[in-house]
Amino acid sequence: MSSSSTTPRRGEKATMRDALIAAAFRLFLERGYEQTTVDDIVALAGVGRRSFFRYFPSKEDVVFPDHERCLADMTAFLESGDGTEEPVGRVCDAARLVLRMYAENPTFSVQRYRLTKQVPGLRAYELSVVWRYERALADHLRRRLRGRRDGTLRADVIAAAVVAAHNNALRSWLRSDGRGDPEAAVDRALGYVRSAFGAGPAEPVEEDPEDVVVVVSRRGAPLWRVVQEIETTLAPRG
Amino acid sequence: MSSSSTTPRRGEKATMRDALIAAAFRLFLERGYEQTTVDDIVALAGVGRRSFFRYFPSKEDVVFPDHERCLADMTAFLESGDGTEEPVGRVCDAARLVLRMYAENPTFSVQRYRLTKQVPGLRAYELSVVWRYERALADHLRRRLRGRRDGTLRADVIAAAVVAAHNNALRSWLRSDGRGDPEAAVDRALGYVRSAFGAGPAEPVEEDPEDVVVVVSRRGAPLWRVVQEIETTLAPRG
Repeated sequence: MSSSSTTPRRGEKATMRDALIAAAFRLFLERGYEQTTVDDIVALAGVGRRSFFRYFPSKEDVVFPDHERCLADMTAFLESGDGTEEPVGRVCDAARLVLRMYAENPTFSVQRYRLTKQVPGLRAYELSVVWRYERALADHLRRRLRGRRDGTLRADVIAAAVVAAHNNALRSWLRSDGRGDPEAAVDRALGYVRSAFGAGPAEPVEEDPEDVVVVVSRRGAPLWRVVQEIETTLAPRG
Repeated sequence: MSSSSTTPRRGEKATMRDALIAAAFRLFLERGYEQTTVDDIVALAGVGRRSFFRYFPSKEDVVFPDHERCLADMTAFLESGDGTEEPVGRVCDAARLVLRMYAENPTFSVQRYRLTKQVPGLRAYELSVVWRYERALADHLRRRLRGRRDGTLRADVIAAAVVAAHNNALRSWLRSDGRGDPEAAVDRALGYVRSAFGAGPAEPVEEDPEDVVVVVSRRGAPLWRVVQEIETTLAPRG
């Protein structure tokens, strides 16, 4: 098993926790998840059972060792703003923290992805983790949209869309065995969400102030038709 | 326990399955979910253990007795179209089937909502059910958007947004103890998703063909600003 399949970040010293994760994944891959017991893991890592449970409440938790840290990072990030940031862009940036955790260690992330697909219990665990990320984003948006029309509805819908876009790009990358640039794929996916929910683009658009677009539309025209027309008109000419 | 807290739909005859659900909920409410065994349930219902497991693979499944039928109804509905329906509206209509299942029996739905909030295992079960609905919607959208730019991304994001909007309205209704009109709340929530993802309104807008709106905008203006401007202009005058 290569050293890149354990979770310490580059430059960090391996710890007992890391040794337990490495031992667990080695056994999960060799024998299967269900066939591996906590006793097997601690025997391979050369530590006692109590050490395992000091770090991980259950065998499932050793499969997702970094989510608690990442959730804490996300919450801290969302609380760190001064409240003037554009909210959709802000939760997109928060979602990027999750991607970064996966991208830090492609080998480990791909192994876990395959394992999770095979074990229904791990899939259920993952759903509960994803739900916690989504709640963290939604709670932030609810605070930011408080008092606005349909504020909680918009908060919940935007949070779900951000998580779905993030996971679409993340899973494509994991399915490709961690090849390519996951950050670019996630940027593109989140860009779609930003455009759907009326947030401005991340980068300022170069503009020519003399260049004017005129759209003439019947008042009764559905908004989506008008937007389609503008999108076509605003598209880069080439 | 009132008869409305069991699941048979109005006009249907109660069955052994319904008797098991009624017995289970009576015990869950009296003693708590964890404190109730399958043996307790079958004793109260006056049937054998094997009858229970003929209908429900586990104790958790008796809490959500109608989701399998509803998932099957949703899949059948999505497959029944001729492929020309506007896809976002189509998955919104599919989501309404779930709402209808809850609305058929407000007392039972509110009891289950309270129970699910208290028992982490049931919350996890519910997440997996919600995920299956979301996959059914996303799979339909992926087929409909196949070959379109970012088709799978858009499918996943729209499905997640539809589910989040539906659940936002559903939960508001459940929190209010099943008072008010949940269908109107869900229509409003789904309308928000339809507008975000460029689907036309469900009802044709009354229009005056002579009434024209002119929007003049710099070519470099971000789309969201242009849309905001149009939304303000198109808003009903009053």
